[in-house]
Amino acid sequence: MSILLAVQDWDSAGWVARFKRNAPDREIRLWPDATDYRGVRYAVCWKPPQGLLAKLPDLEVMFSLGAGVDAMMHDPELPDVPLVRIVDPSLTGRMTEWVVLQVLMHHRRQRVHDAHQRDKLWGRVPQPAADAVGVGIMGLGVLGRDAAEKLIGLGFDVAGWSRTPKDIAGVTCFHGEDGLRPFLARTDILVVLLPLTPDTQAMIDFDLLGGLRTDNHMGGAVLINAGRGGLQVEADILRALAEGNLSGATLDVFVEEPLPPESPFWTHPKVTVTPHVAAESDPDYLCTYILRQIENFEAGRPLENVVDRSLGY
Amino acid sequence: MSILLAVQDWDSAGWVARFKRNAPDREIRLWPDATDYRGVRYAVCWKPPQGLLAKLPDLEVMFSLGAGVDAMMHDPELPDVPLVRIVDPSLTGRMTEWVVLQVLMHHRRQRVHDAHQRDKLWGRVPQPAADAVGVGIMGLGVLGRDAAEKLIGLGFDVAGWSRTPKDIAGVTCFHGEDGLRPFLARTDILVVLLPLTPDTQAMIDFDLLGGLRTDNHMGGAVLINAGRGGLQVEADILRALAEGNLSGATLDVFVEEPLPPESPFWTHPKVTVTPHVAAESDPDYLCTYILRQIENFEAGRPLENVVDRSLGY
Repeated sequence: MSILLAVQDWDSAGWVARFKRNAPDREIRLWPDATDYRGVRYAVCWKPPQGLLAKLPDLEVMFSLGAGVDAMMHDPELPDVPLVRIVDPSLTGRMTEWVVLQVLMHHRRQRVHDAHQRDKLWGRVPQPAADAVGVGIMGLGVLGRDAAEKLIGLGFDVAGWSRTPKDIAGVTCFHGEDGLRPFLARTDILVVLLPLTPDTQAMIDFDLLGGLRTDNHMGGAVLINAGRGGLQVEADILRALAEGNLSGATLDVFVEEPLPPESPFWTHPKVTVTPHVAAESDPDYLCTYILRQIENFEAGRPLENVVDRSLGY
Repeated sequence: MSILLAVQDWDSAGWVARFKRNAPDREIRLWPDATDYRGVRYAVCWKPPQGLLAKLPDLEVMFSLGAGVDAMMHDPELPDVPLVRIVDPSLTGRMTEWVVLQVLMHHRRQRVHDAHQRDKLWGRVPQPAADAVGVGIMGLGVLGRDAAEKLIGLGFDVAGWSRTPKDIAGVTCFHGEDGLRPFLARTDILVVLLPLTPDTQAMIDFDLLGGLRTDNHMGGAVLINAGRGGLQVEADILRALAEGNLSGATLDVFVEEPLPPESPFWTHPKVTVTPHVAAESDPDYLCTYILRQIENFEAGRPLENVVDRSLGY
């Protein structure tokens, strides 16, 4: 009945206290302090070291503390037991807040106004209404759909692209390889909310960015990535910014996190960096969610949000 | 049948061309070039000089090119003919874009992230979900209602205050003098969308700002004014920022516009200045709207959006 917490870089002591508070009758062990792995039926993970989970002889279910499970999927010794990911309605709302904020920052030229303020310049800029602006969302899962809905509510001309066909009211939906070019060609602001899989790895490259629409009031296309850093080729983003195809980029995720001090993104005048904060879950919610799933599992009811290993999400 | 355009500080030649293009059969005159005011039945105004409209012997309807008519109402010689104001659905959407952007900028601590980026700091900040944040909207006309609706969609806890009682789904509505204190006490982010009238002049003062809720993740209340500069006492805003009650302010409107170079707002680290751009109408839309109203008027149908002189809007 034991739960092992394998949490790196995220307040492991806080997680132990939280699980003990919410599940006082269970034994809570913490990696790497725990050395005896016998009897561990559940593992709760955030960046667990590769190979650790394979050492748990009695493991029945793995839980990821994040919505993205790409880091865990990279473990070649990942045990063949269900891997459950977080689906957090509050996380969806937080992601949508961040996406709407960043889309509006570009659409309403907030960085231009910021520069004008620094120069004490009362300066107007051309400002079309939202319906003249094509926002394209890559990835139409729970997060992409919610963001699309709120952006439609604000009047944007919203399209979406996904691997498989989707149908969302008010969204012009494209899919698959054939749909990518026409999707990009009508997109002024690209919002990336894809999962990181072998298919999507390094997908946001110079060629893809070159397909975006640049004839707009921002003077070029805009990239907003809140998915995963591994989706983007960072040298290609810099090149697209330098060559004028991209007028700006807002990045919450990076190939290497924390973003190293030598990254040119920190000081690039056209780039906004946020530190992987687009959608952070409430830790108490995550703890409750996992304990509820464990109770269901022990009562013989199905687990929710089990990762499909063949798709990677 | 003539139309006189009395437009200051806003591309008067462009307005003449636009009206001539859309109403080729009408005589379009431009103040101050025109000296003969006989036969002018309609005046289209933006900051008209005081006393000008009283000189038009045949005037039947006055049109304001803006939603706010406070500048025209200050003309002691304003003729006693209908004054029509703009109600532009596109303007409503633009205002909502701006309000949602600025609310999210504060809620998601974008300025803190901007500072971290300048310092190359991968720094997280406490980030509650939107439902923990009280947004209070002063002024529940067309603009206030639309902003409220979109902010509710994003999950904020939205309240409104207006002179007279209103009932809006999902919004906790307060009204009148008695409702002001309880409204302020549950408001972390105050959005001002009031019309400027003798009753609302200088209403946003130190005392009012002192009533806002400060116990929040932003470290104090926030003021966002997209109404009129005359609503705010600027020295009081600076004092509230200095004394800690306000953690930030975003101002699109000022007592004096353009904002003079010596204003401390330009360089204040907690203040975002935008140059009265929250909601600018599409000039072609305004022209079409006014010409349609003139046609209706000449066909004996009622004018829309006539200002109530006793209320001032």
